[in-house]
Amino acid sequence: MDVRLLNHTPDPERAIAAAARLCYAPVGAAELLDAMSDDAVRKVLRTILRSGHLSALEHASYTFAIDGVSRALTHQLVRHRLASYNQQSQRYVKAEREAFVVPPTVLADECASDAFDAAMRAAWESYRSLLAAGIPAEDARYVLPNAAESKIVVTMNCRELLHFLTLRCCKRAQWEIRELALTMLALAEPTAPYIFMDAGAACRRGPCPEGSMTCGEPYPKAPKR
Amino acid sequence: MDVRLLNHTPDPERAIAAAARLCYAPVGAAELLDAMSDDAVRKVLRTILRSGHLSALEHASYTFAIDGVSRALTHQLVRHRLASYNQQSQRYVKAEREAFVVPPTVLADECASDAFDAAMRAAWESYRSLLAAGIPAEDARYVLPNAAESKIVVTMNCRELLHFLTLRCCKRAQWEIRELALTMLALAEPTAPYIFMDAGAACRRGPCPEGSMTCGEPYPKAPKR
Amino acid sequence: MDVRLLNHTPDPERAIAAAARLCYAPVGAAELLDAMSDDAVRKVLRTILRSGHLSALEHASYTFAIDGVSRALTHQLVRHRLASYNQQSQRYVKAEREAFVVPPTVLADECASDAFDAAMRAAWESYRSLLAAGIPAEDARYVLPNAAESKIVVTMNCRELLHFLTLRCCKRAQWEIRELALTMLALAEPTAPYIFMDAGAACRRGPCPEGSMTCGEPYPKAPKR
Amino acid sequence: MDVRLLNHTPDPERAIAAAARLCYAPVGAAELLDAMSDDAVRKVLRTILRSGHLSALEHASYTFAIDGVSRALTHQLVRHRLASYNQQSQRYVKAEREAFVVPPTVLADECASDAFDAAMRAAWESYRSLLAAGIPAEDARYVLPNAAESKIVVTMNCRELLHFLTLRCCKRAQWEIRELALTMLALAEPTAPYIFMDAGAACRRGPCPEGSMTCGEPYPKAPKR
Repeated sequence: MDVRLLNHTPDPERAIAAAARLCYAPVGAAELLDAMSDDAVRKVLRTILRSGHLSALEHASYTFAIDGVSRALTHQLVRHRLASYNQQSQRYVKAEREAFVVPPTVLADECASDAFDAAMRAAWESYRSLLAAGIPAEDARYVLPNAAESKIVVTMNCRELLHFLTLRCCKRAQWEIRELALTMLALAEPTAPYIFMDAGAACRRGPCPEGSMTCGEPYPKAPKR
Repeated sequence: MDVRLLNHTPDPERAIAAAARLCYAPVGAAELLDAMSDDAVRKVLRTILRSGHLSALEHASYTFAIDGVSRALTHQLVRHRLASYNQQSQRYVKAEREAFVVPPTVLADECASDAFDAAMRAAWESYRSLLAAGIPAEDARYVLPNAAESKIVVTMNCRELLHFLTLRCCKRAQWEIRELALTMLALAEPTAPYIFMDAGAACRRGPCPEGSMTCGEPYPKAPKR
Repeated sequence: MDVRLLNHTPDPERAIAAAARLCYAPVGAAELLDAMSDDAVRKVLRTILRSGHLSALEHASYTFAIDGVSRALTHQLVRHRLASYNQQSQRYVKAEREAFVVPPTVLADECASDAFDAAMRAAWESYRSLLAAGIPAEDARYVLPNAAESKIVVTMNCRELLHFLTLRCCKRAQWEIRELALTMLALAEPTAPYIFMDAGAACRRGPCPEGSMTCGEPYPKAPKR
Repeated sequence: MDVRLLNHTPDPERAIAAAARLCYAPVGAAELLDAMSDDAVRKVLRTILRSGHLSALEHASYTFAIDGVSRALTHQLVRHRLASYNQQSQRYVKAEREAFVVPPTVLADECASDAFDAAMRAAWESYRSLLAAGIPAEDARYVLPNAAESKIVVTMNCRELLHFLTLRCCKRAQWEIRELALTMLALAEPTAPYIFMDAGAACRRGPCPEGSMTCGEPYPKAPKR
């Protein structure tokens, strides 16, 4: 898995604080451009994050380029609808190279690893046979596995990113998308440390919401703002 | 592929016409409940459809249950973000039965069919080995192919459904999602014949928008409203 | 305020339970159409509502026709983006009749009522003068007050409706949109009593999330599912 | 009207071209970060803009701070749902100063101007009386006019911004939001001149879509890409 932070709104905490300040203070657009002190930025962020009035977080966004993840992962990822995606197409780009993701549970078991590798070899062998027989790539790909590597660019605003991290850093999420989420958090956190200080699974900020389906192993609690 | 129209807004054309009428006429909520004549409904629909002011179409929605489609298809389908989905989970439901979709180009070629079938057998054999070795279903599924059958329920409002049909009935869409789109159109059309009379690919209503990538074989033009 | 439930998905609880069942059970589209027992419906709903996995709630939707509310209210209402709206236009429909909403705090104070009524008379007097002077309705309306009555049709799916009710039944919401929310809840509740049994402000289901801005007068707790 | 471009994705054309390139080329995340030549950027943009496959445009976004516009305008603006807003609240910020927007049709007519000014004076006089009588600001504002000035921050991605400009630069849009749209276009255009070269009303790129409601005075056609 190779994840890069391609782009983000410059100075996200200031951008968000400026937008939030407009709602509650008798300032106009021109004053928003004036420098707020770091303390003032922090104070506004504390208010909106504590109160849960999160709309101002939408004024900063993050673009990640994600490579070497499975189609199992991307199918989960694109279910998050408040985001923008561009994904490498298996219809137009031939997957000539055997590139696939192996789950850690499989890697840890020699017998399972053998069965997995055999499946990968068989899949790509069929794929190449189909291409050789003149089957279009968009149809030949039907034999490719969920494990097949894909690439995707995703843009989320900061509010949706926090929501995504809440759901996908949770230990009930599948390991691969959880690894992605934790990586995205690690990349985003330095750009807005106060906003992301308690980001991640819900158990960092309060009780587990999963009820009887809890994993029973909560993350350490985040510091209070 | 088994597609059922599970639910739709009762009397969709009337529901849409009533909402549209509110904008432009000095009527209130109570009068909206009064019967509009069929002619009045038709007249309002003609106005909004001709002018492209389509927001009122959002007040009717359609729910389809879709079975026997590939994961290749569902990955394309869920990219339509203005819709609601529930999909059968490969994490929680084991895919014990070898159920998969075969592209027509493969079916038409004996040699390709053999390669395809071999790939399917190998995939499920590995899948069952992994399960037998104690690998969780959510990880074992990494060897399952894009062809593996899935089931999904989708709800779209009428405006988004028309947009979906425009994109996915187009002959440049892949055959499987085009078949789905044409089936959805055939199911929805009787519930609102005036609205759906020119639904489908853009070429039914005007020039092909695909430019140099056109298929060159437009659908027959729909009648004018 | 005159609020009517114009339309809703037939048998919403069954529609939602059927969609949810697809995810976790080895059933297909055809079986979804089979009758689930009332008990089975309830059991599925309990699972998704307790766990917070609410996506299946999006497969039922509600359309309300709302009349006699202020433009102050509709400006708040349309900020809910996951919904569909058609509103009576002040650009195209002249507001000849003096129709406006009076806040209860004003009604309760004779002196304030007099100032308010004077403002309404002056506003419409100017409005009519402007129309008489040939000013287009879309510009004449600039003198009309926030209190001016409007009409709007809104469609929300059940998930978004519950979210709307959480925010707008809260006593920190303004009285008018709270009255609207409570009316919408009263209209929707009989169509899906199990789903709406704990709908409304967050304090019905747990602690107040407003922190130091709490009203301090929580609603009575809803029964546990 | 005072409109500032508060923030935008750095180098928007490059950001968009990189995301688009991932779909169709065998490159990965790391290569996306490599410099594409200006020519390569232009070539990718030409392809996606000509074909109408616009999803990559969502990876760049723009934040505008808008001041001195009427509540009539903001009520129209926030109907665009694929955007993020923070607006100055009339519930929490008292509108002590008589600040309002006068339509040009009114300004051009002395008699109308007098009626308009009288209405504004009467509205704020009542507003201040209500506040003095102890009516909360959120209720006193019911007497304030549509003309009352508001401030709002809006963030749109580039795809939605182009759509907004198509609708709101059109001469059938009301003069005030058209002025806003033209200003936003003038501010965004230097950041991505190739993308915005034909932005604005639909008539810049083809026939008027408004049918019998056309204004009959199309904008000059934009150059072809």
